[in-house]
Amino acid sequence: MADAIMFDRIALIGIGLIGSSIARAILRADLTRELAISDASPQHLSEAEKLELGHSFHHDPVEAVQDADLVILCTPVGTYRTIGEQIAPALKAGAIVSDVGSVKEHVVDTLQDVLPAHVDFIPGHPISGTEKSGPRHGFAELFDNRFCILTPTEDASQQAVDRLKALWEAIGSEVEIMDAKHHDLVLAITSHVPHLIAYNIVGTADDLESVTKSEVIKFSAGGFRDFTRIAASDPIMWRDVFLNNRDAVLEMLGRFLEDLSMLQRAVRDSDGEMLESLFTRTRNIRRSIIDAGQETDAPDFGRQHHAETDSE
Amino acid sequence: MADAIMFDRIALIGIGLIGSSIARAILRADLTRELAISDASPQHLSEAEKLELGHSFHHDPVEAVQDADLVILCTPVGTYRTIGEQIAPALKAGAIVSDVGSVKEHVVDTLQDVLPAHVDFIPGHPISGTEKSGPRHGFAELFDNRFCILTPTEDASQQAVDRLKALWEAIGSEVEIMDAKHHDLVLAITSHVPHLIAYNIVGTADDLESVTKSEVIKFSAGGFRDFTRIAASDPIMWRDVFLNNRDAVLEMLGRFLEDLSMLQRAVRDSDGEMLESLFTRTRNIRRSIIDAGQETDAPDFGRQHHAETDSE
Repeated sequence: MADAIMFDRIALIGIGLIGSSIARAILRADLTRELAISDASPQHLSEAEKLELGHSFHHDPVEAVQDADLVILCTPVGTYRTIGEQIAPALKAGAIVSDVGSVKEHVVDTLQDVLPAHVDFIPGHPISGTEKSGPRHGFAELFDNRFCILTPTEDASQQAVDRLKALWEAIGSEVEIMDAKHHDLVLAITSHVPHLIAYNIVGTADDLESVTKSEVIKFSAGGFRDFTRIAASDPIMWRDVFLNNRDAVLEMLGRFLEDLSMLQRAVRDSDGEMLESLFTRTRNIRRSIIDAGQETDAPDFGRQHHAETDSE
Repeated sequence: MADAIMFDRIALIGIGLIGSSIARAILRADLTRELAISDASPQHLSEAEKLELGHSFHHDPVEAVQDADLVILCTPVGTYRTIGEQIAPALKAGAIVSDVGSVKEHVVDTLQDVLPAHVDFIPGHPISGTEKSGPRHGFAELFDNRFCILTPTEDASQQAVDRLKALWEAIGSEVEIMDAKHHDLVLAITSHVPHLIAYNIVGTADDLESVTKSEVIKFSAGGFRDFTRIAASDPIMWRDVFLNNRDAVLEMLGRFLEDLSMLQRAVRDSDGEMLESLFTRTRNIRRSIIDAGQETDAPDFGRQHHAETDSE
């Protein structure tokens, strides 16, 4: 399948859930001759080597990016500046540098001045993931039918954007191009604020005195457990998201809180009409998401109701 | 299997998701000689008849409860008073009357004076469900390994409580006994406030001008879609929950908002330490819920990543 080759050498810096899923998807479709993997964690790196997620494995990211045509940062965004400064002198002319971080304007600000002018810098963000972390939890299908957003800088060549877009399509994604600032606003409402309120309610439930932790756990199937999935996401990655998309998160959180005040008032005033009208409207959005192929129609997310059941 | 029989005649008033799941579970385990079904909706009733969810089908709940040893209300709690007044004169001496409503103190207040003294009134609440509504979406396994809370009134006999407990155990549940007020507090945090904030964020996302509805839908896999499941739950049932558990909901919502203000401040102040410490703590709660058998350990709730995928 040599005609599938899109890049002679690809370097992935960071081999956690997303990095290792990209590696598997690239190998599945045979898109490169040489896949170089680097990770700051010796444990992740040796795990990745055992799982045969690439062709070469490097503690030093500088070694990994040597001669690479495409470099993708797959580490928490808080590490980008350090890594960028390290690899910048080793980057080959004409290489594409991208990433998978959940914030984009900050990434542009951080890396733009650090990277040499002779590379094409095209930040990216695949809208997919699970609550698990680490190389053994990745899988090649993670990006199938999901969207990947690219936010090319003004200096990036159209040819480079087309090449990176083709790679993401080859690993299963649909690609959307938008500017970094708009990305951050869209993701604030579709991802960051949802994570923030999920983390928050799980924390609240953990702190109560009037309801025991054991009660929260036993009766979590009433709805609470749905929030615990994204509240189990990687703490460092998410800390960095909130540190680096502050303004958009605060703006969207403000909207959420305004609406919640009205809802709180409706509960206080026993305004059944307002409640019913909101609860009816929100049903339709789920339907649209299912119709767009971004969610399963199976009840309860398709959770197994039998798996751990003792039969009577 | 005649020795499985626990009640000669059981009447289910309301044959939606929960009622129809109870019906299936009762038939699965052969727990009654006669299962009488009633529903105010002719469509639900004829659907239930086609699905053979009982032995007799009645538009009039009075007919259904005739001679019944156990009557379970499975309708939105807002309907209880009317139904209670209708069926009260027809209830047999020694019958057990129960329900499956998500609030309990209000149910006690509503029905206590309406029901005759010669019945045992034992409100109940199975902590299980899906976002789907209607008789065709029920299934016998819905209660397997889930908890059912009973909040017996002071007048209910221990023997009646034991019989109802045995029924729930026979259809797969673990049973907990608690008082109605405490139930309402526990469920406010494990179910009602989670639903309220899920409905709220889905509403907020729907109302934005800066982010289009199409963007919300496309990029919902970033976390937002997790909230849309419970925000697709039955509007009437949930309206009635908030109308009838106002105080506990407002109390728990107040705690949630206090915590959210601190988190908002942490984002504004770029307090990475506070964020990381919360995000680390919340991971453990999910682990406990999984260990308690109340949640799947499969990544992404076990959502199918391939189901609707076009292969490349």
